[in-house]
Amino acid sequence: MLPFSVVGEDSESTARAAELTTPHGVVHTPAFMPVGTAGTVKGMAAWELERVGPEMILANTYHLLLRLGTERIVSLGGLHRVMGWDGPILTDSGGYQVYSLAKRRKVEPDGVVFQSHIDGSEHRLTPGNVIETQASIGVDVAMVLDECLPYPVEPRQAEKSTMTSVDWALQGLERAGRIRAECPDWGGGVFAIQQGSLDSDLRRRCTDALAAADFDGFAIGGLAVGEPPAALYEAVAMASPMLPGHRPRYLMGVGYPEDILHAVGCGVDLFDCVLPTRSARTGKVFTSMGDLAIKNARHADDPRPLDESCSCPTCAVYSRAVLRHLFVANEVTSVVLLTIHNLWYFLSLMRGAREAIMAGRYTRFRAQVESDRNRTA
Amino acid sequence: MLPFSVVGEDSESTARAAELTTPHGVVHTPAFMPVGTAGTVKGMAAWELERVGPEMILANTYHLLLRLGTERIVSLGGLHRVMGWDGPILTDSGGYQVYSLAKRRKVEPDGVVFQSHIDGSEHRLTPGNVIETQASIGVDVAMVLDECLPYPVEPRQAEKSTMTSVDWALQGLERAGRIRAECPDWGGGVFAIQQGSLDSDLRRRCTDALAAADFDGFAIGGLAVGEPPAALYEAVAMASPMLPGHRPRYLMGVGYPEDILHAVGCGVDLFDCVLPTRSARTGKVFTSMGDLAIKNARHADDPRPLDESCSCPTCAVYSRAVLRHLFVANEVTSVVLLTIHNLWYFLSLMRGAREAIMAGRYTRFRAQVESDRNRTA
Repeated sequence: MLPFSVVGEDSESTARAAELTTPHGVVHTPAFMPVGTAGTVKGMAAWELERVGPEMILANTYHLLLRLGTERIVSLGGLHRVMGWDGPILTDSGGYQVYSLAKRRKVEPDGVVFQSHIDGSEHRLTPGNVIETQASIGVDVAMVLDECLPYPVEPRQAEKSTMTSVDWALQGLERAGRIRAECPDWGGGVFAIQQGSLDSDLRRRCTDALAAADFDGFAIGGLAVGEPPAALYEAVAMASPMLPGHRPRYLMGVGYPEDILHAVGCGVDLFDCVLPTRSARTGKVFTSMGDLAIKNARHADDPRPLDESCSCPTCAVYSRAVLRHLFVANEVTSVVLLTIHNLWYFLSLMRGAREAIMAGRYTRFRAQVESDRNRTA
Repeated sequence: MLPFSVVGEDSESTARAAELTTPHGVVHTPAFMPVGTAGTVKGMAAWELERVGPEMILANTYHLLLRLGTERIVSLGGLHRVMGWDGPILTDSGGYQVYSLAKRRKVEPDGVVFQSHIDGSEHRLTPGNVIETQASIGVDVAMVLDECLPYPVEPRQAEKSTMTSVDWALQGLERAGRIRAECPDWGGGVFAIQQGSLDSDLRRRCTDALAAADFDGFAIGGLAVGEPPAALYEAVAMASPMLPGHRPRYLMGVGYPEDILHAVGCGVDLFDCVLPTRSARTGKVFTSMGDLAIKNARHADDPRPLDESCSCPTCAVYSRAVLRHLFVANEVTSVVLLTIHNLWYFLSLMRGAREAIMAGRYTRFRAQVESDRNRTA
């Protein structure tokens, strides 16, 4: 099991600070994982990402599998070598992408068959082979195969699917045990994924079944799939406390700074989201004083950095006026510079949250961040 | 005048090593200037470019003028501040872009009127105002306004146009003198541009007229505009020795490594070209053992770096297999990584040339580079 210890708890919320130890290093939580879908955080050379300083990153098994193939990644020395990244890596199982991207897929009792969105080739994901793939490429945390439910969903479908996900998770863990016995080189962990849509009873039943097994961590899945913001908040508040407290909790694919701060308050430890990186490509910038659209004409003559309280390399060198110019002129450099800033913002936010938790003032920290962000940057 | 001293001469060719001192630092020649068309070398954050290590970069007055505007650049603290680059910057006058890009332009005796390719707005470039613009944004070397002749061209048109360019160059220098008198803050130099198509008599007449004035350097213009490679080589061999030896010689917009090595052998000191940066975006990679197209399937499983003798950051971290994958997957990161490598290659080539010149073995150096590059990387 990956060592995990809670090192601080907030006094007014269930927020907590913890340390997750992986084969490639310790992750201080709450932590945000930048997304490196196809083996790179978009626009970031490996050394640039290192400078931005995440403690763990996420990659997508689905994209890696279809584009590079497991065997090639193995023969190139594993995923860390491929990504030029020596820190912890968590990979999703590919299940989510199969549901959101694949043109044709068929759910069978023992897995999913789908056709590649790239070349139409047929692939089969099973609860066992997704763990095998992730272990063989050397990830630090492997996610089990699950079925991500759409929103809204029929109660009957939700129940059936959730129980399938539980079954797959347990099969995955069992396979991980065999892999570890046969190949002690792999020291990564396996996280289960709680499903159950917005139904608390179903999430509870799912959790109980998963928590009885020795997973290294537990994710909250199936949220941020189109439900209203209030429903997301309620669901996180309902789902997070169900998960075992002595293991890391990971809210998949969420989200905006405010969503993350809410979830941290509910005891969630790990996050990933494409928001900071994807937004950089559309010119949306996150700042401590609210978000801004860099292409807006009001920035054209503004000599200030994106965020006067930010210590990122972009803010140290470039004014809003120049960044707007580069973005409007379609310069690739603007993607690089805005990605750096946005990631820096999310990572700083998490560090701030952690410090506040350690000092027992998380609730005030969160209120201050949200109040500052309500202004117009 | 910008200090310039020849510090080494090859024994078998007219290649030379020199030092050009500018307000923002010394340039050791022969030197290659990466192109930062619209205020950034495409894909390169300022600190990344610094790491790649050019001693001087080029920016385009035309693009800066149309997109940002002179006043804005001045109010943002000048071009160095805008680009986040504290080293020497040379800017072209905009004349070349007016000829190659503008939809509508009209050459008048006292300058060029053109319409922006971006918003159709009308602009006027005069021999004086292009120098004024470049001085006001604080460049280290300003280029005079010239008329870049197409290839092929009628002798009569070539003569008339070349004499216009001479006239404009002298007007530009005169304006520079007035600017310096009124605004001693600007310590940049002015380079003249030799025109004359492929006609050696015309280039000679042009040179004689320009060399009589106190320009800080002399460029060879109007080449690499579509003439056959052999004609380019002959023209450089003919044009370069005409230029005054006590001042830097700059071959504009050239070119391939072999073209540059030939020109260095003819005594040229400075180069710029979009080739390393533009090629990175199309997946063309320069290496000491020949060039390669990274998207080629033969690289798909190749664990080697792009160039085993290269010490660039990209080659230290990424294999050809991974770079191919990133390029094929359309990842912006591949542009960044290939740009770094290609620029590194060109800059290393120039450093190698300089060392060889200092050691009096430039001819052998050039032969070795060309022989190595004839293999298949």
